[in-house]
Amino acid sequence: MRKVGDTSNSEDGNERNHNDEEIQKALEEVDSCQNEIDALNEQASDEIIKVEQKYNLLRNPLYHKRDEGLNKIPHFWVTAFVNHPDLSTILSDSEEDCLHHLSKVEVQEYEDIKSGYKLSFFFDENPYFENRVLTKEYHLESLEEPTCKSTAIKWKEGFDLTTPKHIASKPGQKRGREHKSFFSWFNDHSDPLSDDIAEIIKDDIYINPLQYFLVPDVGVDNGVDDEEGSDQEDENEEQSGGIIGDTDEDTHDIQNTVSEEPANA
Amino acid sequence: MRKVGDTSNSEDGNERNHNDEEIQKALEEVDSCQNEIDALNEQASDEIIKVEQKYNLLRNPLYHKRDEGLNKIPHFWVTAFVNHPDLSTILSDSEEDCLHHLSKVEVQEYEDIKSGYKLSFFFDENPYFENRVLTKEYHLESLEEPTCKSTAIKWKEGFDLTTPKHIASKPGQKRGREHKSFFSWFNDHSDPLSDDIAEIIKDDIYINPLQYFLVPDVGVDNGVDDEEGSDQEDENEEQSGGIIGDTDEDTHDIQNTVSEEPANA
Repeated sequence: MRKVGDTSNSEDGNERNHNDEEIQKALEEVDSCQNEIDALNEQASDEIIKVEQKYNLLRNPLYHKRDEGLNKIPHFWVTAFVNHPDLSTILSDSEEDCLHHLSKVEVQEYEDIKSGYKLSFFFDENPYFENRVLTKEYHLESLEEPTCKSTAIKWKEGFDLTTPKHIASKPGQKRGREHKSFFSWFNDHSDPLSDDIAEIIKDDIYINPLQYFLVPDVGVDNGVDDEEGSDQEDENEEQSGGIIGDTDEDTHDIQNTVSEEPANA
Repeated sequence: MRKVGDTSNSEDGNERNHNDEEIQKALEEVDSCQNEIDALNEQASDEIIKVEQKYNLLRNPLYHKRDEGLNKIPHFWVTAFVNHPDLSTILSDSEEDCLHHLSKVEVQEYEDIKSGYKLSFFFDENPYFENRVLTKEYHLESLEEPTCKSTAIKWKEGFDLTTPKHIASKPGQKRGREHKSFFSWFNDHSDPLSDDIAEIIKDDIYINPLQYFLVPDVGVDNGVDDEEGSDQEDENEEQSGGIIGDTDEDTHDIQNTVSEEPANA
């Protein structure tokens, strides 16, 4: 780290008083001011956490109600995951198959919010592992070293998706620091503060998974909107949340998605 | 983007009703729920903005008072910039000299906060350019394309720091997407949403510049704290804001910094 104190170009700012005591006094003034600013920042942060907590309580019953609906939609979560442009890049084919047994995703912020969050993945009985819930927890208290831990997965014999033969199933994926599969991400606790996959699940997919489930079939099935249905329009519609039946000319994909499902009734 | 609708592994979840109408109804339930969640998120966001606005008003007079103190400390901002571990890496030697004329830094969030912010750099009369204020503005409204604009710098002849001879003055710096100098960053408007240098100035240096001005001289001048003055301790002290005179055994660098300045009084 470089220091600047020894650059004695005193031709500028001659009006200023360079007297040591004056500077010392100024530093103390600034420090006292800074302490007041810091205190206000703390207060602001506390108030914001209270707002977040209030809305978490209001959101919880809606999330539960949403879960009830999602539970009636076959393959909901794997579809949302696979349709997500970033998440899809780390899913191996075997993992995609495994995630067909993912029945529920839950994100819980800890009571004081700043201290971390927990992702829970609920699975039906499945050929891959014994666990019915896989959790990954992020503890980010500011005073301690941030940590991350996740459930030890009890793989069934021959179905361990972290073994090389499963991971290597998708050619052309990057190696190195990036996660090369969903379960290698799940088992990786190296950088809790900047876990991009966790943030995608927590701040994007979980916030509104329906938009990823209902990815528009761009002009394949219905031929509507082929000319004018630009990417921007699609994005705006997804963000506004007005997905269902606002106009006849854009019914999005609910019908299409449903009719593609095998009818097992 | 891959689709999952055609994977007809129906061996799992047989209890669930795959009937099209049921699924359609479930999707509508989920969509209605999602709209309520979205509305709550909007409300939460509005409340948080109100908190931020309230505290911005409370902080403003303190920032003004802090500016008065900082103005009495010679070379304050250039020292803070040069001591910042990330910002220092983009400063060329000529730029460092130029920033000795930087008298004030100001960060203004726009009234509705989400819509953007403005960085202002106030300069004394200087050999490099005619401008007395250089501003860089970030307009990040969610409905429009985010944009960024900055003051056109009126360089004085022979002092244009964006010309190759000045930029190339520091060997070993990376090229490519990273900014290779302060003024190339200043003139770059390519990615307003993820401008790391702007974020360092806005969310780190401006929040507490004193901590970077007062970088501890690790055991050079005073020989105190050599053994026990670990990095963690220094960091904790800087974050807590208790910089001045809590204990005799850790007077930090205020005295040292001052005594290194040439006394021009």
